[in-house]
Amino acid sequence: MRLSVLLFSLLCAVLACAAEVRPLLHFTPEKGWLNDPNGLFYDRKDDIWHIYFQSNPKNPFWEKELHWGHATSKDLTNWTQHESAINPSHRGEGILSGSVVVDRNNTSGFFNDSVHPEHRIVALYTRNPGLIETQEAAYSVDGGYTFTKYEKNPVLDVKSSQFRDPKVMWHEASNQWIMTVVEAQDYQIQIYGSDDLKNWNFHSNFSAGYPGFQFECPGLSEVPIAGTNETKWVLFLAINPGAPWGGSASQYFVGDFDGYEFKAIDSLTRFVDIGKDYYALQTFSNVEKKDGVIGISWASNWQYANKVPASNWRGMLAMARNFTLDYVSVNPQKKLLSLVESPIFEANVSKTSEKKNVKLQKGDSIEFETKSGVFEFELDFQTMKNITYPEQPNLDLYITSSNGKESIRFGFEADVGAFYFDRPTNVFQNPYYSNVVTANIQPTKKYEYNIYGVVDQNVIELFFMNGTTSSTNIFYFSDGKPSKVELKSNYNDLFKIQKFSLRDLSV
Amino acid sequence: MRLSVLLFSLLCAVLACAAEVRPLLHFTPEKGWLNDPNGLFYDRKDDIWHIYFQSNPKNPFWEKELHWGHATSKDLTNWTQHESAINPSHRGEGILSGSVVVDRNNTSGFFNDSVHPEHRIVALYTRNPGLIETQEAAYSVDGGYTFTKYEKNPVLDVKSSQFRDPKVMWHEASNQWIMTVVEAQDYQIQIYGSDDLKNWNFHSNFSAGYPGFQFECPGLSEVPIAGTNETKWVLFLAINPGAPWGGSASQYFVGDFDGYEFKAIDSLTRFVDIGKDYYALQTFSNVEKKDGVIGISWASNWQYANKVPASNWRGMLAMARNFTLDYVSVNPQKKLLSLVESPIFEANVSKTSEKKNVKLQKGDSIEFETKSGVFEFELDFQTMKNITYPEQPNLDLYITSSNGKESIRFGFEADVGAFYFDRPTNVFQNPYYSNVVTANIQPTKKYEYNIYGVVDQNVIELFFMNGTTSSTNIFYFSDGKPSKVELKSNYNDLFKIQKFSLRDLSV
Repeated sequence: MRLSVLLFSLLCAVLACAAEVRPLLHFTPEKGWLNDPNGLFYDRKDDIWHIYFQSNPKNPFWEKELHWGHATSKDLTNWTQHESAINPSHRGEGILSGSVVVDRNNTSGFFNDSVHPEHRIVALYTRNPGLIETQEAAYSVDGGYTFTKYEKNPVLDVKSSQFRDPKVMWHEASNQWIMTVVEAQDYQIQIYGSDDLKNWNFHSNFSAGYPGFQFECPGLSEVPIAGTNETKWVLFLAINPGAPWGGSASQYFVGDFDGYEFKAIDSLTRFVDIGKDYYALQTFSNVEKKDGVIGISWASNWQYANKVPASNWRGMLAMARNFTLDYVSVNPQKKLLSLVESPIFEANVSKTSEKKNVKLQKGDSIEFETKSGVFEFELDFQTMKNITYPEQPNLDLYITSSNGKESIRFGFEADVGAFYFDRPTNVFQNPYYSNVVTANIQPTKKYEYNIYGVVDQNVIELFFMNGTTSSTNIFYFSDGKPSKVELKSNYNDLFKIQKFSLRDLSV
Repeated sequence: MRLSVLLFSLLCAVLACAAEVRPLLHFTPEKGWLNDPNGLFYDRKDDIWHIYFQSNPKNPFWEKELHWGHATSKDLTNWTQHESAINPSHRGEGILSGSVVVDRNNTSGFFNDSVHPEHRIVALYTRNPGLIETQEAAYSVDGGYTFTKYEKNPVLDVKSSQFRDPKVMWHEASNQWIMTVVEAQDYQIQIYGSDDLKNWNFHSNFSAGYPGFQFECPGLSEVPIAGTNETKWVLFLAINPGAPWGGSASQYFVGDFDGYEFKAIDSLTRFVDIGKDYYALQTFSNVEKKDGVIGISWASNWQYANKVPASNWRGMLAMARNFTLDYVSVNPQKKLLSLVESPIFEANVSKTSEKKNVKLQKGDSIEFETKSGVFEFELDFQTMKNITYPEQPNLDLYITSSNGKESIRFGFEADVGAFYFDRPTNVFQNPYYSNVVTANIQPTKKYEYNIYGVVDQNVIELFFMNGTTSSTNIFYFSDGKPSKVELKSNYNDLFKIQKFSLRDLSV
């Protein structure tokens, strides 16, 4: 036990603070601070997933001198952290968010023949030495573990202090590298093109959605439409602060991209995740076609990220998700082309609990235990009649700490038709740390609802209606660990539980 | 005292429920249920403001058989409620939302010369007899107190079950009546034109913003740009349920309108108010030019509107607001053409409390009393240095009930730079009734912030930076009445209070 952890534990025995918890399915840094995922790429030669991340290795909170922390995994679940891969060269300089591509044809000229084509790795990132933000390049000849900064940096400088987060990809149809990058406070996603990753030409601007304070972390991905051979382009965009629910949010637009301009199919604003803690989504580059589109976000919110209970490390990434597009029912009349998301992780099931086809009556309770505090659950239910005021019929899933002191209440009120997620606010006390998020969900024509959730110590990722809506939220219990899961109703003959199952997990 | 009120009071003496409160500056119905404001118009002959509203006179909750309730005022504050003006003609029929115009030139032919031109009043509303929604007309020859339904109704029928909320205006430049109406679940704002209010021609569709479950209550207004002789058109749009913060929200788009098509100046999504309780904004028609653009919303949220503590009435309207447009600083680099809002009300000031130029130190408290529970306050402050983690410096305004049991905490954390509004959730216990809403606010270049608020028993309307952002929220105290207002900080030498004043109000 490290001294800092010991001190923290002793302090927590006296005060009512959150126990140290480290999620198992979510990447967390060994020590120091983590925010946005950066440079996500898949190494086809060694079959390894690489993630980099905004890192302050010195302290468990954000400071200017950000590094690119680095970790690798074979399964997107069990991560090995390595030395920081790109580091600031002087005090006050930050190596900010960016992306990585595999330059197998050596378009950049950074490589010689001794470097295997699949290990010709180039990072494009934002450097902020203080008052200006430029895009820089660095290359790695050892598979992404160490990088050499390009001696003629920057590769893109428009004399702006708010110009950042380059996400680069190879665009086959127009035979060029494409960079999306934001002019953050002008609400512009800018698209640039390049033949060599060094010289960049401006193509177009795109601006839409809910603006908030500023745009961050854009990204373009070609996403398959489920059940077809077609694809559409998805333009991801993070905003922070000023999200409608407070702080940080990730939006996206669906459209077409010809290598020069992105044209949205409509003017509607969509969110990747409607929870309070899902920011700065980035997709992996160089993924094999069979694996589809895979991305990772930061699971926190800038309103309180620096202040959540912590010992010598702070911050976690959301689980990797697979993204497809589908025409999703959003009300009885309309289907909107929307993202469908499913988490990707590998875990062992230590125990399965399941109930099927139960009419849940008032006072009934289906109670499952979780030993690890890490579990997935499925809840399929049907509301058997139409309910209007003054009835107030709840179906509630309570997730309770092992000391019984705190519970999450996740549920549904049949006359409102929306889900609520209510987290305790007594352990982590912060004025921006709101209790309730809700999700308005369109059921099937038979009024069936489907929820899949993954709970990992102190974070929950919820997926409604087979992943057509997601909500990611962190939470704090005084003993750190969910232990009991109960499903209850206050109403007779209304909720038919088609399936309620819990699988306790270990990695 | 009515029996129901007596029973309620007795019950509340036993249970910890909210005391009955009736705001003074906000319109509430004498009895029954209120939701959307309808048919707002100004009578130039008698100098009277008319409001109608979605009303269930029978019960204090929503039911299908909605009426147009009716009230009038000379000052937009003191309202006289009249008999319902338009009523359903059979069980199961609802007279849904709509608008009123003054047809002074008798384009409709509904009037003869005996009716003063300023009293040629036509209502256009949605009728829902069960499975279809059509637009109907009714006219009044007595200044808006009673209406006769047009015998050849409907005036607009597209065989849709989700086609509603006609807002009609006279468009001078194209010499025609214009109706905006929604095809709710298709996310379309439709624009129609007419010469006579009876025959309507389709002009165009407009679709943008955050879609939620469905569109409702559209409206077009020509709004002056502050400090210029120019105007732009604002297209208002309500969405419910599925607002990003849960339930109901009011959005708007800024653009140009030529009598046929609305073209937005950008693709950004804007909200009229970022509180949890501001829905279905409608502007008054027939307002004299000097009075500008004036509108009223419903101050509640469909997630819990039917369930807030009540005796024999339920629901309130927000205060009337004046709307202008201005180029508003949204971050250090950008100004966005946005609504600027200020409440309109008449009240007597019974007591003024004020402090100026106080450096608020840790442990200091500026404490004011309110006898009526109805007051306005102004808070101008400056943050005197730049603060970053691990500091957590709060400026807090606590508004506390007379029994001392509950407080609202409204405040600001200097390192985050956003405001939070935290309402107690112990009195009205409902899973969708969330505690915290936040507001990200851009200060002046000198880091000055300006807040104006009106508290009216159990509702607060907050206006930041001279009304460039607003947040309206209802709240519940166990004794119903705010009594003590305190301004505090936990930090030294940071918050300079330029002005903090409270004016106790009566009407």
